[in-house]
Amino acid sequence: MDDSFALASPSYAAMDRPESIDLSHHLSHLAKSRIASPLKGMYKYFQRPGMLMLAGGLPPPELFPFETISATSLQRNSFKTTQVGFGQWLWNWFAGLAGKTDEWTIRKWEEEKDKIQLSSALQYGAFCFHRCTGDWEKRMTAVLPKNGARALLRTLKSLPRAGTAAGLPALARFIYEFTSHVYRPGTSDFRTVINAGSTDAWGKIVTTLCNPGDGVLAEEWTYPSALATAWPNGIKPVPLPMDGKGMTPEGMDELLANWNPDEHEGMPRPRLLYTIPVCQNPTGATMSLERKKRIYEIAVKYDVIIVEDDPYYFLQTGEYEHDEALRAAARPKVTESDDEFLKSLVPSYLNIDYQGRVVRIDTFSKTICPGSRLGWTTCNPIFAERLERANESSTQSASGFAQALVGKLLAEEWGLTGYLRWLKGIKAQYRDRRNTLVDALLDISHASLDARKTSNGTYEFWTRGSGSLSEKGTMRSEKGAVELRKRRILSFVAPQGGMFVWLRVHFASHPEYNSKPTTDLLGALWEDLAEHNVLVAPGTMFSARTFGPGDAAPGFAQADEHLAVTEDGDGFFRMSFSSATPEQMKEAAKIIGDRVTKFFKD
Amino acid sequence: MDDSFALASPSYAAMDRPESIDLSHHLSHLAKSRIASPLKGMYKYFQRPGMLMLAGGLPPPELFPFETISATSLQRNSFKTTQVGFGQWLWNWFAGLAGKTDEWTIRKWEEEKDKIQLSSALQYGAFCFHRCTGDWEKRMTAVLPKNGARALLRTLKSLPRAGTAAGLPALARFIYEFTSHVYRPGTSDFRTVINAGSTDAWGKIVTTLCNPGDGVLAEEWTYPSALATAWPNGIKPVPLPMDGKGMTPEGMDELLANWNPDEHEGMPRPRLLYTIPVCQNPTGATMSLERKKRIYEIAVKYDVIIVEDDPYYFLQTGEYEHDEALRAAARPKVTESDDEFLKSLVPSYLNIDYQGRVVRIDTFSKTICPGSRLGWTTCNPIFAERLERANESSTQSASGFAQALVGKLLAEEWGLTGYLRWLKGIKAQYRDRRNTLVDALLDISHASLDARKTSNGTYEFWTRGSGSLSEKGTMRSEKGAVELRKRRILSFVAPQGGMFVWLRVHFASHPEYNSKPTTDLLGALWEDLAEHNVLVAPGTMFSARTFGPGDAAPGFAQADEHLAVTEDGDGFFRMSFSSATPEQMKEAAKIIGDRVTKFFKD
Repeated sequence: MDDSFALASPSYAAMDRPESIDLSHHLSHLAKSRIASPLKGMYKYFQRPGMLMLAGGLPPPELFPFETISATSLQRNSFKTTQVGFGQWLWNWFAGLAGKTDEWTIRKWEEEKDKIQLSSALQYGAFCFHRCTGDWEKRMTAVLPKNGARALLRTLKSLPRAGTAAGLPALARFIYEFTSHVYRPGTSDFRTVINAGSTDAWGKIVTTLCNPGDGVLAEEWTYPSALATAWPNGIKPVPLPMDGKGMTPEGMDELLANWNPDEHEGMPRPRLLYTIPVCQNPTGATMSLERKKRIYEIAVKYDVIIVEDDPYYFLQTGEYEHDEALRAAARPKVTESDDEFLKSLVPSYLNIDYQGRVVRIDTFSKTICPGSRLGWTTCNPIFAERLERANESSTQSASGFAQALVGKLLAEEWGLTGYLRWLKGIKAQYRDRRNTLVDALLDISHASLDARKTSNGTYEFWTRGSGSLSEKGTMRSEKGAVELRKRRILSFVAPQGGMFVWLRVHFASHPEYNSKPTTDLLGALWEDLAEHNVLVAPGTMFSARTFGPGDAAPGFAQADEHLAVTEDGDGFFRMSFSSATPEQMKEAAKIIGDRVTKFFKD
Repeated sequence: MDDSFALASPSYAAMDRPESIDLSHHLSHLAKSRIASPLKGMYKYFQRPGMLMLAGGLPPPELFPFETISATSLQRNSFKTTQVGFGQWLWNWFAGLAGKTDEWTIRKWEEEKDKIQLSSALQYGAFCFHRCTGDWEKRMTAVLPKNGARALLRTLKSLPRAGTAAGLPALARFIYEFTSHVYRPGTSDFRTVINAGSTDAWGKIVTTLCNPGDGVLAEEWTYPSALATAWPNGIKPVPLPMDGKGMTPEGMDELLANWNPDEHEGMPRPRLLYTIPVCQNPTGATMSLERKKRIYEIAVKYDVIIVEDDPYYFLQTGEYEHDEALRAAARPKVTESDDEFLKSLVPSYLNIDYQGRVVRIDTFSKTICPGSRLGWTTCNPIFAERLERANESSTQSASGFAQALVGKLLAEEWGLTGYLRWLKGIKAQYRDRRNTLVDALLDISHASLDARKTSNGTYEFWTRGSGSLSEKGTMRSEKGAVELRKRRILSFVAPQGGMFVWLRVHFASHPEYNSKPTTDLLGALWEDLAEHNVLVAPGTMFSARTFGPGDAAPGFAQADEHLAVTEDGDGFFRMSFSSATPEQMKEAAKIIGDRVTKFFKD
């Protein structure tokens, strides 16, 4: 990992950044009553040479059946960064580039103690020590019940310096350096905690910061599993209005300014925001730095903790450009430098955080593989310490197999620059995938619908002039007789990367809009598409407004689900371009154009 | 896995076993309000040929950097089952037996769909379908809030048959067959759920079955991390009395019969028992089948759910025999058959469970490696379904790396008979380790203490006759003048395997017993041992009686810790024989004998 340290920008390292402020009043009752593992207090004796260790309960590594684990891994530059469209998608494979692999082995025992080895990686969680500054130990005494704090401090003081973090040391170091270099957090005392994947991390964060009866601010359309994790703990979502660029600062400010618990069944003003700021799931919206800054200031104003769940950060591929000539012109001619690459990504909330009120969730699911069940949380040291306690009494650390294999690949094979090169290739792959699906959708116009781009970057699909007049005056254009014969049926904002297109269906244009519940129309169209072999995710499933036990499973039949469409009668489908082939996407877009046209025919 | 099926006893398979009874009234509020992942409802379309899948958010396996993962694994017969003491401990290595390894590879893609492959193992949790009978779906409707049940049933009905279980299909099948064959559960509709290790499994079980304010019955000396997991959820331990053979049926019956919430700060009569019945942590006690049966009947009587945490099950090595000739005679001459091996292990609570009120926790931590963070829970289908929901919104399934590597080794390399052979070798290893430590402890007598075995199987250490009279009349023997000059200082019951010896220190024999708090004496002796390079675990840390935030970290200084010794002034040290070398154990025993003698000198 020598190259990593060379990369770390000296200007950032030397920057005078503030320490996090005391935010311990956000800790939940549950978090405060977490107990440090009693065995931890003996660690001071663990390092002592000649110590006869009869205290633990560790099985001997001689009895682990794994002597070595090896992998053949794709080379870091397996995927081109300069590819020209999907025609070139498999180019690397034919050119023998992507097929090139490295082979490496993790042994049970290594001479060098620091090297990743199975004897420790597959043992009970190794402990490692991060740099970490600040007087947060002192602060803990004010936070925890008297005895707990005393015990905690005793434990902490017996450790080399200020805090432990479970996990494989080599991987933990890599993660800390990566976070420092790539996100450049605004506080000096941030910490990184390895976890067993984003969903588990979020479950621990929300129960560490919220009590039953509290609410979580969330984008009005959001990742339902995040809400499902909070719900059983008595923590309900409080939806925030969005536009094509994500949640709006105005919406958040207004909601918090006018919060009255009596209007929310006694729920106090929410202190936690759950947000997916980049290539949002499900809407695909990416928030600008400016908007993030405004939202951060609102969080400061109302003392809100921002949880930034950011799995698609490195899938930010930039604006969609339909015109082939313009698209080619915007495409990089050579692989961008690390600095160029990082500058092309909207800064994380971590970067603008000068108080330590941002909790960032990172995962290897989209950049390495979901099966790693491995990621990390970055936050202030007080929250980090409580999250480590939560890990100790549940998942302990993440799987040693995952930590060893991902750790070896990143920390000992690729290093920071190597991993950044890999991420550039991944980003280019998703750029081509995004382009393919959006291209294919716009080609619907070749069939039976007219497409056009509006000034706010939205693509719209209208019925052809040949159709009869709309039933509803509301849809009439002011421009003239010809346009009057058209109805707007679909629209979407082309996403700046990620995995999803959020297709808006304007049910108000449907002939039966006034005679049928809109959710019935949405359900009927979804089922019609599925029966014609196109499976998309119905938008109802992502609604923070209607979330609850009744909303489980596709659930078009719920009584209150009419809320999962907009006031204007718009419903949504989430379409993924992450795993289908180009041919499948084109075929799906064609079927959608065909079925939607038929569905809206009056 | 062909051999596995051949092994499955036909008599057991054909046995007419009852279905589990309805125990859904045990579900906690939290468990009842868990929500099925909304995406699950679309699964019926997932299997359809030709479906264009744009619904999910899966990264394409082409972008996983791992093309193959290989391992060299020790052969199943690497460890002898017939070894003669620790002198032979490394025999296999010299003979080249243990060094023999198999090599195998998991590829990203395999022709055979059923074979373990990285493209699916490293993807978001594969779903698989177990056999499972019973009308438990119907029962769910009575349990869950109306809408939740409806949604759940809809989901379940869209699946091939009765329930899903997250995890790699090959591993999940192996685990189900292993459970069926090895434990022979008494109910026909038991299910197995893969989890991310025992601690995480227990956390989910206790919050699925207990509400805040509830209590958990636990052995008075127990695994503190289990209590630390329950505690922050407002669930407190209720200690049960033990003797040398584990918790006593009488103690449990008496406690439950006379339960008065007013005497327990309003806590209702506990409905959950957490027990480690085999080679218990920390006491090493192993419960007999007869005692298990009596405890099970008490559980039936008071409607208690038994959670059996059983990590040491395959480390049951049988009674300790000090006499070398007798020990050699008892030792197997050839490797025991699978039936002989399984019959040598005390049956699991699962086996005697005819109502489905046993929840068994299994782990690969002691038999494969702790770093797998992989295990499984066996229980009735209603509990299993709720535990799967808990997994979905947290760890999802266990790490795909761990599932693939352990799954491949067990299901595709070793099979059931191969794994049983491996377990026989592990058991023999722990037998030799146990013998080594107990032998070494008894050799203390060569130094300055006298050892003797009492009729109840306890070994005791007494001061030599040369010491002066005990200060306390209570310790005087009735046998005569010579014995009067002796004081009993240490004692222990030789464990039937596992990892631990529970050393009892009779502080009442200490000259300063009346002038100093007993915990101070315990602390002073522990620190003296540590300063002389022997690290053992102080028994205070395993006390369910004094557990709480104040008890974190070694904690000899807590005001109420005098409770962590018995009424007779006995304190405890837990000594582990799992990972030290024979030389280290002998050296440690020598130091203990030496220091204890000095410590008790008056």
